[in-house]
Amino acid sequence: MKALVIAAGEGSRLRVSGYHGVKPLYPLLGLSLIERVLLTLREAGIREVVLVIGFRGQEIKDYLGDGSRLGVKIQYIDNPSWSAGNGTSVLAAEKVLQGERSFLLTMADHIVSQEAVERLIKVRPREHEIYVGADFKLDRIADLEEATKILVSDGKITAIGKKLNEFQAVDCGLFHATPALFDALKEAQVQGNSSLSDGIMVMARQGQALVCDIGDTWWIDVDKPDDARLARKVLLMNLPSPRDGLVARYFNRKISVVLSSWLAWTRITPNQVSIFNAVLCFLSAILFATGHFLWAGLTAQIASIIDGIDGELARLKFLKSPFGELLDSVLDRYGDGLILMGMTAGAYLNGSHPLVLVLGSLALLGSPMSMLMKEKFHTATGRRYLPAQEGMWVNLLLANRDGRLLVVMLSGIIRLPVVGLAILAVTPHVLVLIRLKLMKRLLLKNSASLKV
Amino acid sequence: MKALVIAAGEGSRLRVSGYHGVKPLYPLLGLSLIERVLLTLREAGIREVVLVIGFRGQEIKDYLGDGSRLGVKIQYIDNPSWSAGNGTSVLAAEKVLQGERSFLLTMADHIVSQEAVERLIKVRPREHEIYVGADFKLDRIADLEEATKILVSDGKITAIGKKLNEFQAVDCGLFHATPALFDALKEAQVQGNSSLSDGIMVMARQGQALVCDIGDTWWIDVDKPDDARLARKVLLMNLPSPRDGLVARYFNRKISVVLSSWLAWTRITPNQVSIFNAVLCFLSAILFATGHFLWAGLTAQIASIIDGIDGELARLKFLKSPFGELLDSVLDRYGDGLILMGMTAGAYLNGSHPLVLVLGSLALLGSPMSMLMKEKFHTATGRRYLPAQEGMWVNLLLANRDGRLLVVMLSGIIRLPVVGLAILAVTPHVLVLIRLKLMKRLLLKNSASLKV
Repeated sequence: MKALVIAAGEGSRLRVSGYHGVKPLYPLLGLSLIERVLLTLREAGIREVVLVIGFRGQEIKDYLGDGSRLGVKIQYIDNPSWSAGNGTSVLAAEKVLQGERSFLLTMADHIVSQEAVERLIKVRPREHEIYVGADFKLDRIADLEEATKILVSDGKITAIGKKLNEFQAVDCGLFHATPALFDALKEAQVQGNSSLSDGIMVMARQGQALVCDIGDTWWIDVDKPDDARLARKVLLMNLPSPRDGLVARYFNRKISVVLSSWLAWTRITPNQVSIFNAVLCFLSAILFATGHFLWAGLTAQIASIIDGIDGELARLKFLKSPFGELLDSVLDRYGDGLILMGMTAGAYLNGSHPLVLVLGSLALLGSPMSMLMKEKFHTATGRRYLPAQEGMWVNLLLANRDGRLLVVMLSGIIRLPVVGLAILAVTPHVLVLIRLKLMKRLLLKNSASLKV
Repeated sequence: MKALVIAAGEGSRLRVSGYHGVKPLYPLLGLSLIERVLLTLREAGIREVVLVIGFRGQEIKDYLGDGSRLGVKIQYIDNPSWSAGNGTSVLAAEKVLQGERSFLLTMADHIVSQEAVERLIKVRPREHEIYVGADFKLDRIADLEEATKILVSDGKITAIGKKLNEFQAVDCGLFHATPALFDALKEAQVQGNSSLSDGIMVMARQGQALVCDIGDTWWIDVDKPDDARLARKVLLMNLPSPRDGLVARYFNRKISVVLSSWLAWTRITPNQVSIFNAVLCFLSAILFATGHFLWAGLTAQIASIIDGIDGELARLKFLKSPFGELLDSVLDRYGDGLILMGMTAGAYLNGSHPLVLVLGSLALLGSPMSMLMKEKFHTATGRRYLPAQEGMWVNLLLANRDGRLLVVMLSGIIRLPVVGLAILAVTPHVLVLIRLKLMKRLLLKNSASLKV
């Protein structure tokens, strides 16, 4: 399926605030608005984009090129009469799209979640129909006055416009359209109305404008500097992983997300962060082995915080890759192992009983088990294993990576790595026993549900 | 979908050879023929079976009960006139199956691979049609004279029977039928012909008997003691995993398959074997730590051989479970770790330089990496990673579990665990580097193909 993206308007309210570029190129956490739109479409599986430009269109063209840098194919259409209304920009694409069964339609200044796009792709308009992405959660709309409202009855739109008094939802600038939209826009134009909403109103009158509830997924119309701030907040809020352990959730992420929001503006890649993280672990190991326990512990905790950044940067800048995930997890295992070796060496050389070697070995043996069991669960069921579902008491064992590195730091601070080793020699194995029990139940349930 | 299984015949040729039970209950590697048929159907997703009994039917009924022990629901139908031909046994199920769109039909004495059943399920006969599972690889048919031959033209059967002079394929006793078969059987009966083939011939004349090529999948009609021997061989031949390393493929499996063929007759479960394997590893560790290097090494190699048996038993007796796989891999990691700890302790206590502790730690750190990377690859791509594709030179690193345990044994035999540790401190990390490179390419190719 192709997507039609409208990037023709002026967006003057964003320019007022000291930004002098053209609106679709407004930068947000290291990517321009239009790049975020195109990359979101790509992640949702759409690789061919028709881009309508108008106001300072050449700048957008120069910036995006043919789209291959972003993994999409862009076909540009110039709309010289963009100032007459956004309906004219949609109409400008008629020739190119009239042969399509249906196409996605969105705006260059609307940041939407991939899930919202996927919902719109999933609905299938019949010939002459259009689906309008609608947000029914009105209390979360920042600027309700400016929003395009929708009155719905039985899943069909009965009225659409900025000035409705009665409405249940808001149009979020995301549509699954058919070429019938072009005829509707022309009909509206004859009556002197040239906005997209006018065209949809024509279809609504014929009962052919349907609603697609985007549910809990998010979208933001970036019109003013306030909207950009909100968009930034929402993007950052969605970074932490549901797979986080306790320490990551309530401490590490608070810092790593801020760091990621800065690093997003640089060219630093997620894989570089993964490697830097492993280097920090190596440094912590050396510090432990040479008796600098305090610094060693702090370095390990810094590594733990940075451990989140590779994934955050990848999500923020659409750089997720299966190889990146593989590299990250291999390097994490090496990082963990080196720190434990350093702690053992440090404790042993600083006068601990030789039995500390056994503790170190047991800790080293236990350290990959948490991840290994999660991966095995994933391959068996096709679903990620979420440590959070193990409940607070198991989480308090701190046997996931974030927890283990906290134990490392604390034992460095009290300058007794042997204490840390003693804890880490036990907790991962307790976690293995608990998980075997939990997973046994989950896997049996899973294969039972397969039987149905 | 339901399956109709015919278990009504006498099977006298199998009884001649000293076996006095009824043919469907003939035991083969720990399971009766009929159990193998029902379990194969279950694995292919069929849970409702109509079972036609006749000759000594009560024995079969007593043995299988309602089928819940095997995870299927059995509905019995008694065919008192079974001796008149197997067509009468199919006809006996008419009342029960006439409302079905289609059903699978097979014989209690035909051992077929799950893949063959899945192929037959996948083809979709239209009303009045039947698909006949056909084996075109005639050179592998043991007793071609006894086989039911098929003459095919344009995917349609033009003649079927034991006495054809011209034929391209052989009927393997597996059908995807529609209730039209019952009418065809009745028509054949009127003409005095009461075999299943006679009914299919009626449909063939109307161009409604189609062929489903079972390709490379296997099936065996167990008629005589010779067939049972062949079936046993084929079942055992299919046990080794394509994920085996070099040592497993060319040495361990030769022994483990024989052991499995014995253990199949006992009540020993795959999980019990996994646990026994871990106990052997623990024993090897103790022997290493106490300086009994030779015995320690041999015990490790025995563990390596036994490591294959849990999976073999699971495949042989339809006992595969995701939890079993999880338990096996967790216990394998513990077994590996304990042996390495034992080797390190043994080398250190027997006068090696303290640097052997570093070697031991590096070996311990490297030991889970092979598996971890394979699992990560699996979750990223949905496909298993096959070490065999890494090529002979990488395989010769012996960095998979079977190879590592061979190194353990050899270093025990030469009574120098430090040599084994030195090798195991290096090779897993070399493998990590090689795999990172190989997997990077494979994962990029994979995500590229997703884009199309």
